[in-house]
Formats: sequence, structure tokens, C-alpha cells
Amino acid sequence: MDMPLPSPDLLARFTAIVGAAHAVSDPVELAPHLVENRGLYKGASPLLLKPGTTQEVSAILKLASETGTAVVPQTGNTGLVGGQTPRSGGSDIIISLERMNRIREIDQMANVIVVDGGVILAEVQKAAEEVNRLFPLSLGSEGSCRIGGNLSTNAGGTAVLAYGNMRQLCLGLEVVLPTGEIWDGLRKLKKDNTGYDLRDLFIGAEGTLGIITGAVLKLYPRPVGHQVALAGLASPADALLLFQKASNLCGTALTGFELMPRIGIEFTTRHIEGVRDPLSEPYPWYALIDISTSDAAETADTMVQALLEQGFEAGLVIDAVIASSVAQQKALWHMRESMSDAQKPEGGSIKHDVSVPISKIPHFMEEAEQAVLAAVPGARICAFGHLGDGNIHYNISQPLSNDMAGNKAAFIERWREVNAIVHGIVLDAGGSISAEHGIGQLKRDELAQIRPPIEMELMRRIKHAFDPAGIMNPGKVVALP
Amino acid sequence: MDMPLPSPDLLARFTAIVGAAHAVSDPVELAPHLVENRGLYKGASPLLLKPGTTQEVSAILKLASETGTAVVPQTGNTGLVGGQTPRSGGSDIIISLERMNRIREIDQMANVIVVDGGVILAEVQKAAEEVNRLFPLSLGSEGSCRIGGNLSTNAGGTAVLAYGNMRQLCLGLEVVLPTGEIWDGLRKLKKDNTGYDLRDLFIGAEGTLGIITGAVLKLYPRPVGHQVALAGLASPADALLLFQKASNLCGTALTGFELMPRIGIEFTTRHIEGVRDPLSEPYPWYALIDISTSDAAETADTMVQALLEQGFEAGLVIDAVIASSVAQQKALWHMRESMSDAQKPEGGSIKHDVSVPISKIPHFMEEAEQAVLAAVPGARICAFGHLGDGNIHYNISQPLSNDMAGNKAAFIERWREVNAIVHGIVLDAGGSISAEHGIGQLKRDELAQIRPPIEMELMRRIKHAFDPAGIMNPGKVVALP
Repeated sequence: MDMPLPSPDLLARFTAIVGAAHAVSDPVELAPHLVENRGLYKGASPLLLKPGTTQEVSAILKLASETGTAVVPQTGNTGLVGGQTPRSGGSDIIISLERMNRIREIDQMANVIVVDGGVILAEVQKAAEEVNRLFPLSLGSEGSCRIGGNLSTNAGGTAVLAYGNMRQLCLGLEVVLPTGEIWDGLRKLKKDNTGYDLRDLFIGAEGTLGIITGAVLKLYPRPVGHQVALAGLASPADALLLFQKASNLCGTALTGFELMPRIGIEFTTRHIEGVRDPLSEPYPWYALIDISTSDAAETADTMVQALLEQGFEAGLVIDAVIASSVAQQKALWHMRESMSDAQKPEGGSIKHDVSVPISKIPHFMEEAEQAVLAAVPGARICAFGHLGDGNIHYNISQPLSNDMAGNKAAFIERWREVNAIVHGIVLDAGGSISAEHGIGQLKRDELAQIRPPIEMELMRRIKHAFDPAGIMNPGKVVALP
Repeated sequence: MDMPLPSPDLLARFTAIVGAAHAVSDPVELAPHLVENRGLYKGASPLLLKPGTTQEVSAILKLASETGTAVVPQTGNTGLVGGQTPRSGGSDIIISLERMNRIREIDQMANVIVVDGGVILAEVQKAAEEVNRLFPLSLGSEGSCRIGGNLSTNAGGTAVLAYGNMRQLCLGLEVVLPTGEIWDGLRKLKKDNTGYDLRDLFIGAEGTLGIITGAVLKLYPRPVGHQVALAGLASPADALLLFQKASNLCGTALTGFELMPRIGIEFTTRHIEGVRDPLSEPYPWYALIDISTSDAAETADTMVQALLEQGFEAGLVIDAVIASSVAQQKALWHMRESMSDAQKPEGGSIKHDVSVPISKIPHFMEEAEQAVLAAVPGARICAFGHLGDGNIHYNISQPLSNDMAGNKAAFIERWREVNAIVHGIVLDAGGSISAEHGIGQLKRDELAQIRPPIEMELMRRIKHAFDPAGIMNPGKVVALP
């Protein structure tokens, strides 16, 4: 339920905290902050504030708690579940961290970087590179998403296999609590067993427990060797067997193992500039294999070749190409990373971001395909993703050839119905209905249905313990009574 | 404050849940469960229960919550901060998980093992080895500590550098809440962004939020190559520079980097059977370097040699030895692992388990030595540990040559005073007073003094949200009003 609309007087008090130059109430300027990329949600808000310091964030939240004003934190506005979008009633004030974009410190000896919550991910990657380090988080929106959002959604992406999610890349946080109090947990420690793990509670909470204004992130040595290959395969089952071989052969040098279907290659070659099919014949499935090594550059080549040989001998790999230049490595990744964009010109797409125990991937892919095609004959399933993490973006483009052809709206109307089918199979396999995108508004009610009541109850108790006034990104993740 | 003593009638009701054969009230049988290894705490308890199933644990906690009876979970009883020891008033019932020691499942394809909370760590390592996998957690007490305790204390040990703490090795948990409700969070997923991170809240909570009765743990490929070297060094500063070279050269192949002082080598060669000084001359400091590789076995040798050459050239390594056999590799590790035991025959030892950002280690070592020797002239500082994690076991053996010689009690009386000195330097350096052992009873009041009030307040709110009756391992980690 939305809260009462803030009065003009109250809005003026909020504005005074950041100064009029950093407060936006003009509808045209506000408009892009009220929608999200997929067009699933459109919110309303009387005011967007751009605090410049942690103290200003604190003052805003203190006033919000005292006056019962709902606030929505927003960083890059690239989230896919409506977590950063204000509700439609017009009560929610948006707090944008875009001005808090300083890199506070780089400690090369300790291999950490300390940043504001509003720094763009690509800026962190760049700052790391400048001191010959790697910040491994990498995802499609890295040019615009910001660290506070990456932390609040426990972002994943393409380097999770070797380096883990955002959760694993963070050592410490600075958080402004809903009451305005500042928790200084900006620790640079790899080991710190002193009480409850508050850090991991804020990470992934989607801004419902506080606003992350600063973070200590881990840096890594830059790999010396790097190689990328693409293999044509017959099935997800073969891909899984190949992944096992890769994991055994390469250990932590295996930095990516992505699964792609033939239709995804067709979409990208058709719609994305510069993408060409790297293999001369079509294959039902493809694995993109990425290997990074810390010793000699040739080791990565040797490993890739050895893996593909093993794959050929075992009858898993039908054909394969190894990148012959850095440009070709990038081209192979570009094909994978534009697979989602390449679906847009194909009409409506019903999306899922699911994970299953990786041993269950072949089973899941078979079951889901049968069930989806039975429900929506002609649906074009473009299921791709991070096989090594058990995470599939199970996207379904609208049919070409039945009554839904050309009728995007009719297809999208079946979003919930199709979700229910796919998620049912995911849950039967012990999987997750949100592997990396989070819950936000999109999956909030579904989560409450599928999780044991005690789990939702514990979440509600935590929410209440941290945000007794209920002002912090309300309506997201967990509904309060 | 202790709670009222449970009546004989209530004790009988608790006993009936597990059956008389699995309840212990005999003082002789109870005795070993009332003390911990360091002899710092001695508790009292009328009853120890050995439930055989999660349902029995649930029934016990339900009854405990309803009757306001305090319970203390205990697994291997190897904790070092009194977290597993009942309080002295005799009100606390001990729940031992020793009968819950099943390995529930091994999924080789998903690389996970599912275990009861009472399985001994070494049994998990062995089960993994039998399917050609590695469960990397490794610590001195691995032959007797149990997984529930490892999780509840977020155990560290010698493989943290490459594989992380217990927190990083766990995918899912089964927890019995203080109310007796069972949370089934036994997920096998590498990626699951569905709400607040309950798992990481229970991990490291030292049994104050619930009892971990089951867990899904990660398995890893067994390394193919393995090599160990010992280098003689002039100072911790040189050790840090060598660690940096090792980290850059070996990346994730660097699986251990331990710092040891000369006095530690003297203690172990003097008191531990079979330990000999591996180098012909004495050096002020030593680094134990452990490298594991996933490709050819020779790669580990090549890496170690390359690292030592770089170290010699940079003037960091004075002398070094590379293990020439698996037996020698084990002997080098044995020296490091027995360093704590080797202190016992040297009299009293005041211990610290601290971490600092690793760039601050040389500074910390210098400052702490000066301050400790000023306070306790003649104190013999045997500071060793996981340099790569910034974690030093800053142990201090009693002087040989002043009024404390031969007077262990007089030295141990100064425990708190010496702690305050060392911890002050640690905190100034942005460090932690408990890197891996936890808080328990030992550091509970100190934690409340050093942490910002808002942090302790959030911890108390979480404790209250999970354990409103206050029955779950009371008096540990966080004091309730």
C-alpha cells in the first residue's frame, strides 16, 4: 500500500538538505527515473534528490523516518525486476546516488578499492586496470550500472564462475540505515569473525534495509594468459559433460562457460552489427569457453586445445574455433552478451532468470521446452546463460506462425502463466526463480508463495528490525502486513 | 544472567525426546563437555542431550522456548572462545550433535556434498577424496571438530587464501530455530538472489540464532600439482613483498602463505616429535609457501622455483628449501600446524587471533612488539599465521628471566591487560580482534566496547527477532539487556 503524499512543505524540507540545484521535481527530468528498461513498471514520484555525501543521505533518511515518507534508492536504474522503480501512487521520493561517484582509495598492497555507492561499475574496472589489477564483476550494463545497485542486487554476470557474485567481491560496507544512522562497516579484512554478518544482510536486500553509500571491494591480479573458444554441441547434456572436463582440467583457470542455443546465434547474426557465425555449419547448441591463467600466456592456449581435444575424443564437441586474436576473443563474447538485445527485434519476449543445481540442467531444459511448447505452440525458446553457475536466462520469443504472430501484447499477457510453468519445473529441481536479478516488485508475491512460511516470517522480522517505520523502498522484496 | 534451574520434571521431559540412552546427566560423563581446550571457562549443566534427527532437535528447542530453558549447542567442543561451553550457573542444557553424523548425499556432477551438522570435518574431507574431489577447509582440530561448529564459527584455517572461509564453502543450510521451527534452506545453488541472506546470518552466529543441523557444502577438483617451500626472511615487511610476488605470479594457484618467527621454529624443533629445522642457518622470519595447480604436476614445481628466484633476486629470500617428497611437504606443514601446541611446554601463553589489512602487517608487528615488551619485559612473542589473509595468531609465551619465570598464573593474570594493548594497535590499523575464532564468551564484552553502538544495536535486534525467548546459547556473542 502506498503512503500519503508528502506535502509541499515536507518536499521543501527534503530539498533543503541537498540544495535546490540537486533536487528534481520537473516531470520531464523525472520521467526517465520512473520507468525501467523492460517497460514492466511505471512509477510516480514528486521529487528526486541527489545527495552529495553520506551525511546528506543520513539527513534525508532521518527526515523520512520521522515523517513516515517512503524513499526509493536508485543508482544506474538498470535493474530488471522493478526494485529501483517508485510505486505508482506518487508517495515515494527517489534518492539517486549519481553524485556520490568518487573512488575513495586504492590500496594496491592490500588489493582493495574503496568507492562511493554511486560509482559506475566500468569506472571501478578502469581504476583497477590503471594499477594493473582486475575488478572481475562484468555484466552487460557495466557502462551505466553503479556499485550501490550492484551490491544491493548481489549482481552476477559473466565472471561469477571464477570470482563469485558481488557478495564474494565485497569486504566492507558503509550503509545509511532507514533511521538515518550511519553504519561504518568499511573494513578491508579478509577474515573478521566478530558477530552477525551484517554486510551480507545488506548485500542483496535491494535497498529495503538501508542505502549502501560506500564499499570496500576486492581487487585481483590481472590474468596473464587469456583464451576464448566456441564449441558446437548436440545438447545441454553434452555441454554439462564438457563443463565437467573443463572444470577438472582447468580448475580456477576456467573463467567462463556459457551455453547458447542455435536460435540465439541466428538472432545475433541477424540483428547485431558485426556478429558473424564463427562456425561453418550450424549446431543445436554452443559453449563459449573462457580461460584465464596467471602464469605464461601460452598456458591458456594449451589448456583450451587440450580441453577441445578431450571433447572431440569423447564425442561431445562436434566442431570448434579458438580465437586467433584479442579482437576475435571480444567478438565471441560480444555475440554472447548481445543475445538479450538481439531478441528485441524478434517481438515480445517472456523472460526467466533461473538457476538449478548444475547436474539438473539437461533435465530442466528438456522438461521446460516440452511444457512451454505445449502451452504456447510455436514459441521460440532462446535459453542461454551461465551453465557453469547453473544459471539459465530462459527467454522465450513470441511465435511467428500462430495467432500471436505480430501480436506482442497477446504474447506478453501470458507472462505470468508461462512463468508459473517454467518456475514450477525449476522448483521441482530444487532451483531458484531469481538467480541473479533479484525479487523487486516482479517476483515479490511469487516468492511469498513458493518459500516456506517461516522463511518469509524471518525476512519480515529482519525488515521490521531494521526499518520499523517501513519507509525504506517499501513494496519491494517482502510485503509487510 | 543465568536462568532458573530446570526442574527434575522438565529434565525428564527433555530426556523423553531423545530417549534415556541418549541423555547424559552423570557428572563424570558430563565433565568433558563443561570445559574447553584452553581451560579458560568451566561451565555447569544438568543434562546433555544427543538428538538423532532434525525433528528431535526441533522438539527440544520447542520445549526449551516454551519453558524458557537455556540451551547450548555443542559439536566437537574445539572452540577457543567459550562459545560452546555452558554458563556456570547450571541452567543450560547442552545439545550435542554427535549422533547426527551422516553424509546425506554426494552429487559429483554438481560438486556438492550434503551433510548432517554433526559430521566430523575429516570425514567430509575423506568422503570428498573418495570421489576424487577436494573439500578444502583444513584446520588443526579437523579430526574432532564438526561441521555445525565449523559453520557456526565461520571456521578459517590454512586453505582460506585460495578457497575462502567456511562461509564461502557453504551453499545451503538446514537450521532449527529457537522456536523449534525448521528452516529448510538446503539449496545446492551457486546463484540464488531471492531475498535476505539468511544463510550468512546463521553462519558465524555461534549458535545464538539457531542450530545448524544440515548443510550443503561445495566440493572442488583435487589439484594435480602440489608443492611446498620454506623461505628464510629478514622481516615481516619482506614477507609481505614476497607474498605480493607470489600472488602476482601464481594467482589462485597460491594456496597458502604462512608467516612464522624464529622462536616458533625453536619451539617446534624442541617440543614436537619429528620436527627438524629445514634450513642450515637460523633466520628471523620464515614463509611457508604452498602452491596447488590444476594442470600438469610440474607446474607447481616450476612456479615455486620461479617465485624463489624472484625472491632471491629482490633480496627478500635469504635461503630456502623446496620439499623433495610428499613426506617433506607434510613435514613442513606439520611444523607450522604444531606451533600452537609447541608453546604449551614453554609455560603460559597469552593469545590473540587478530587480522589487519594485509598492507598493515609489518607496521602492526613492529608496534605490537614494542608495546608488549614495554609492558612485559622478556615476553617471548611467537606471532605466526596466515599472512596472506592478514590473520596473525599473536601469541605471547611467558618470560624466562624475570619475576614471572616459572609463575604461569602471574603471567596469565595479565591476559586482559595485554589483550588491550595488542587489540588497541589492531583497531588503530582498522583490524579485527577476532579473525577466525569468534566472540563466544571471551570477547563478548570487548566487542561491545569497540564497535559502534548502532552495530551492537542491530545485532541485538536480530537476536531478538530470531530468539524472542532468549534461550539460544545465551551469554555468547551479544549480551541482551
